[in-house]
Amino acid sequence: MSTNPESIPLPAVRRLSLYLRQLEALARSNQATVSSKELGRALRLTDAQVRKDLAYFGQFGHPGIGYRVDEVIRRIRRILGTDKTWNATLVGLGNLGQALAAYRGFGRKGFQLVAVFDADERKVGRPVEALEAVVVQPLRELRETVARLNVRLGIIAVPAEAAQAVADQLVAAGVRGILNFAPVALLAPPHVALTSVDLAVQLEQLSFQVGMQTSSVRPATERG
Amino acid sequence: MSTNPESIPLPAVRRLSLYLRQLEALARSNQATVSSKELGRALRLTDAQVRKDLAYFGQFGHPGIGYRVDEVIRRIRRILGTDKTWNATLVGLGNLGQALAAYRGFGRKGFQLVAVFDADERKVGRPVEALEAVVVQPLRELRETVARLNVRLGIIAVPAEAAQAVADQLVAAGVRGILNFAPVALLAPPHVALTSVDLAVQLEQLSFQVGMQTSSVRPATERG
Repeated sequence: MSTNPESIPLPAVRRLSLYLRQLEALARSNQATVSSKELGRALRLTDAQVRKDLAYFGQFGHPGIGYRVDEVIRRIRRILGTDKTWNATLVGLGNLGQALAAYRGFGRKGFQLVAVFDADERKVGRPVEALEAVVVQPLRELRETVARLNVRLGIIAVPAEAAQAVADQLVAAGVRGILNFAPVALLAPPHVALTSVDLAVQLEQLSFQVGMQTSSVRPATERG
Repeated sequence: MSTNPESIPLPAVRRLSLYLRQLEALARSNQATVSSKELGRALRLTDAQVRKDLAYFGQFGHPGIGYRVDEVIRRIRRILGTDKTWNATLVGLGNLGQALAAYRGFGRKGFQLVAVFDADERKVGRPVEALEAVVVQPLRELRETVARLNVRLGIIAVPAEAAQAVADQLVAAGVRGILNFAPVALLAPPHVALTSVDLAVQLEQLSFQVGMQTSSVRPATERG
């Protein structure tokens, strides 16, 4: 484990996720080894790029064999940190929040939901359906709970107008990352990783494109 | 309605979503008008860019008043097509699929879930909890149902290895857009709009960053 993750350029880190995706698919189909050429073709990258990326974290192909799929998967997961488990909290238990509480993908990537907060006093104290032993807490307990449970990631699923205040509380409480599902651009200090998933924007863009495709295909009968 | 949506450059269409987000926030705080300067500052764009973008769809500021918030919101929604309703289908009713079925954001952006498909025969015939009058159908009925209900958008929430085959079936059935939640890159013909939301990639990137932040903040006590 001689590789220092901070020395890897961020675009290469993003490509690690793509390699992992492809390698996991190969593992599912029981392929034991893969060449940089084959990986590159699948991901539309040059094989020189693939070799350079994998070399960043000390992974080199074996002559005549290529890369061992299992070995590279294990190494990428270790670099990404998804082989560890971090505690996470969800703030906002509306429709989207309930959906996220039930989403098992967090656990698969090493984020365990250990606390849920909501501003609605009627929800406070109730168990969270999808999560064992988690009860909805009021926002005023956020800071203490995040510190006590060593929560590293805050997931925001509150309405747009409440999102920045929640982000500020999460940052003050000491989280190291924020995953924002509220349809608004948030600010966070540079030591806190911030990622936004704006489904509303993506649906609007799809709506525009679906409408365009439609209008160009059958302009007369369209009503929508 | 003299504007032809196809004449608007795609980056401007993406910015329409950002303007809409900001204008909706202003409307919630009962602000009736806004200047290009104020909009630009909020979105980190120049006011020249704002004026140019809004002019694409025939919207001009009123001298001394600025833009009327409600008027511009209405116009942007019309351009994006989110003032219309398109029928949509969800394929895959696992954890993520159930979460998506319960997510009300689709409806708010004009996509109504009218059909749900799953390959698991044990799920077929059951009502979908979050959707009134929708019963899980087998995949073999996809083509006929999409045509009969005039479904425009297919939402894919199946495992990675099944996703391309489902996309192909949706395209053959005549959908105009695909929203892919499977963690895999899909191919679709150019007349079908394709958007992918890869939460797994975003969680991996957050995991990497949370790990990095952590290691640089407290290198000795870290265990993860």
